[in-house]
Amino acid sequence: MPAQIGVTGLAVMGANLARNFARNGYTVAVHNRSVGKTDALLDAHGDEGDFVRTESLEELVASLETPRRVMIMVKAGKPVDSVIEQLVPLLEAGDIVIDGGNSHYEDTRRREAELAEHDLHFVGVGVSGGEEGALLGPSIMPGGSKQSYEALGPMLEKISAKYDGEPCCTWISTDGAGHFVKMVHNGIEYADMQVIGEAYDLMRSAAGIEPAEQSKIFADWMKTSLSSFLIEISAEVLAQVDAETGKPLVDVIVDSAGQKGTGRWTVVSALQLGSPVSGIAESVFARGLSSQRTQREQAQEILAGHETQVELPENFVEDVRQALFASKLVSYAQGLDMLGSAASEYGWELKLDEIASLWRAGCIIRADLLDEIMKAYADGQKPENLLLAPAFAEAIAEAIPAWRRVIATAVQLGIPVPVFSASLAYYDGLRRKRLPAALIQGQRDLFGAHTYERVDREGTFHTQWSGDKTEIAAVSTH
Amino acid sequence: MPAQIGVTGLAVMGANLARNFARNGYTVAVHNRSVGKTDALLDAHGDEGDFVRTESLEELVASLETPRRVMIMVKAGKPVDSVIEQLVPLLEAGDIVIDGGNSHYEDTRRREAELAEHDLHFVGVGVSGGEEGALLGPSIMPGGSKQSYEALGPMLEKISAKYDGEPCCTWISTDGAGHFVKMVHNGIEYADMQVIGEAYDLMRSAAGIEPAEQSKIFADWMKTSLSSFLIEISAEVLAQVDAETGKPLVDVIVDSAGQKGTGRWTVVSALQLGSPVSGIAESVFARGLSSQRTQREQAQEILAGHETQVELPENFVEDVRQALFASKLVSYAQGLDMLGSAASEYGWELKLDEIASLWRAGCIIRADLLDEIMKAYADGQKPENLLLAPAFAEAIAEAIPAWRRVIATAVQLGIPVPVFSASLAYYDGLRRKRLPAALIQGQRDLFGAHTYERVDREGTFHTQWSGDKTEIAAVSTH
Repeated sequence: MPAQIGVTGLAVMGANLARNFARNGYTVAVHNRSVGKTDALLDAHGDEGDFVRTESLEELVASLETPRRVMIMVKAGKPVDSVIEQLVPLLEAGDIVIDGGNSHYEDTRRREAELAEHDLHFVGVGVSGGEEGALLGPSIMPGGSKQSYEALGPMLEKISAKYDGEPCCTWISTDGAGHFVKMVHNGIEYADMQVIGEAYDLMRSAAGIEPAEQSKIFADWMKTSLSSFLIEISAEVLAQVDAETGKPLVDVIVDSAGQKGTGRWTVVSALQLGSPVSGIAESVFARGLSSQRTQREQAQEILAGHETQVELPENFVEDVRQALFASKLVSYAQGLDMLGSAASEYGWELKLDEIASLWRAGCIIRADLLDEIMKAYADGQKPENLLLAPAFAEAIAEAIPAWRRVIATAVQLGIPVPVFSASLAYYDGLRRKRLPAALIQGQRDLFGAHTYERVDREGTFHTQWSGDKTEIAAVSTH
Repeated sequence: MPAQIGVTGLAVMGANLARNFARNGYTVAVHNRSVGKTDALLDAHGDEGDFVRTESLEELVASLETPRRVMIMVKAGKPVDSVIEQLVPLLEAGDIVIDGGNSHYEDTRRREAELAEHDLHFVGVGVSGGEEGALLGPSIMPGGSKQSYEALGPMLEKISAKYDGEPCCTWISTDGAGHFVKMVHNGIEYADMQVIGEAYDLMRSAAGIEPAEQSKIFADWMKTSLSSFLIEISAEVLAQVDAETGKPLVDVIVDSAGQKGTGRWTVVSALQLGSPVSGIAESVFARGLSSQRTQREQAQEILAGHETQVELPENFVEDVRQALFASKLVSYAQGLDMLGSAASEYGWELKLDEIASLWRAGCIIRADLLDEIMKAYADGQKPENLLLAPAFAEAIAEAIPAWRRVIATAVQLGIPVPVFSASLAYYDGLRRKRLPAALIQGQRDLFGAHTYERVDREGTFHTQWSGDKTEIAAVSTH
């Protein structure tokens, strides 16, 4: 019996996805460059379903029903191109090549165009949920032709996470859209983790609440609008005691956060799209700063704090919760804004309600909030910004006084809250009648004749700053 | 008599640089694709020095002494490549091709490598100071081989701005280093303009100080450590009254700031280098946000402010000045940090004292401060971060109480101060003993087995979160 899907690349993610397909009743052909991994997988888990062992890509391809579905699960970058190059001559028109790795969406766009020339479908699939998600049900974001989704989508939906029985997988749009959406998911994840860190730091440093006690607070927050996977695991991490020292584990871990690049990609892409993802950017920078150990060690010796001791607001913990919620909302708003810009730029039909819906389970940012976000875009509603959807405008309004108090307190006490601050600045920037950008336009016109627009009539104008300072109608030459 | 330098591309910047060479006694061959511009230049300014009129690149090249120096002043991007392609067959080994436009440093690196294969020198020159600077003396940042600088440097130094008689031009380093440094200059410029805007907005919105009055305040600040070109022109812009309406011009200008890309490039490059340029990034995002007019109009209607009325600190204006100074310092520190990372990444010997020195005159960010920055890196001093240089650690320490008060006030009053806030968060992040990055590492280890380091011994560790929660020594597989 021919296999319904082939997986090449059997490191943890590939192996777990292959097992997930098999456990869901599909016949899965498996291949790895070194056959040892293939055999290890089959030895350990061969009884979980129907696997077809293959030793070469030729065998893998030969074992598949048509249209063939071949999923590449190798390291992002050149290895993907290399496997594609080997696969193309083995495939026939209409076959489907799937990249389930963390590829950059620009690579996916390029590969899709290249394979289209061979009449092959190329599907870039964002997969979130880590190793466990890959095995038990990840959130899946496939981008590619609609036609390929007909042949592939039902299988992906079957192995995906479910939220209230609905699969966390839907066709995103063409070419790189799936990997783009996965990238933005990760950018939001960075911000989400950082705002939790800021909340923790505030409660620890301002209010002296120890990790064990904070673990209970985070567990309590699971009963609020903050309920989410990341809050849940924060409670778990904060409860953990280091066996060796008896200290809270979080005090034993070096405070330099690593990163694998997707947060950075998100911000780079947002800059190119002109989308102001300041909270996500600050979370990326915060990780970068935390890793500049030499500078930090010296700075601890040299730089003054001059903290101002201020009284904590009453109900400080609840204030922090609200500030965390508001800041988190802003990160989601910025991420979704970026999706809107990308849709225009790349010609993707991104349905934000569907995207929010498939983040509701299986992925790292899964949260009750996403169900509300989905509703804000449902039934054809298209708020220009998530924060402008009535439910969210209202939710954030309630949190504002606490949000302001918490940041003002942190600033006085010398506790860095970069994402809280950036998020509030974004919110206030968005809603203000006038921004000082007018002064910047004046400066630019003065030193570079970059011209400006007037509030009272159409056109482009220039003040002759080095002349008699009269204004002239102008065509920007810059 | 052969010309000493040729300039091709006679739009404003090219024409003004050609005139600058001629006015400094050099014989300058000039060329433009359409000869009309060449003739217009010679008609208007031919009497300023020795020009050689040429009608083709062949003629231009033929008119030059050897080694030939040809300066390309066309639009950045493909036009530069196109001119290079036409020039290469006309040149001989040892000749020097100069790109004086706003090219991306990666393009410059590529072009330098390509021309080296033809035994030609390629020099990417950052030029700052706008049209007037190009004519009267810009700040010049040349990157290329040392050998080419011997033949070209003295001419560039001659036409450059002078600070206390010293030329604002020096060899930066190889290939793209000049354009890189110019890019970072522009990134700092973005932040510098935005912090001035935030100071203005605070004084206007919190203290009700009108533009005319603020113009006097900015003029006063010229007598302080803030003294700089941008403060000076801010005073001028704020003094300007719109002839048509009688209102301050700044109230008539649309508050959407434009951008031409170098700020964005700076942040993208910093992200790639892992350098946390949060203040510069926020200034880029602030321009982006200001231009999202549809969202802003709706947000003004929909989003609540819930400002908390707080009493302004005594001496609010002086507080704002100090907050502006501290935030500005952080932007410079971030820009210079990025130069340090780039030097390692690209193998450039960047001398930060020399770079600061050549920004002291001719360019947009010229400021008294740069003389102090130069001194902080002089005589082989290498602070890991500008803020750690004794003079700056001290200067910022004085400003801290005001800095904290101003941001706390802005946050309560609903006045967005994204760069003030990001700068303080960076400062506090740098000097804090412990950052919440430890919690982030715990989260990452839990959901992705990304492992962590311990504060008390070497190695990489993983807690078996889904098992018995014991810790194991680990090799990161991610």
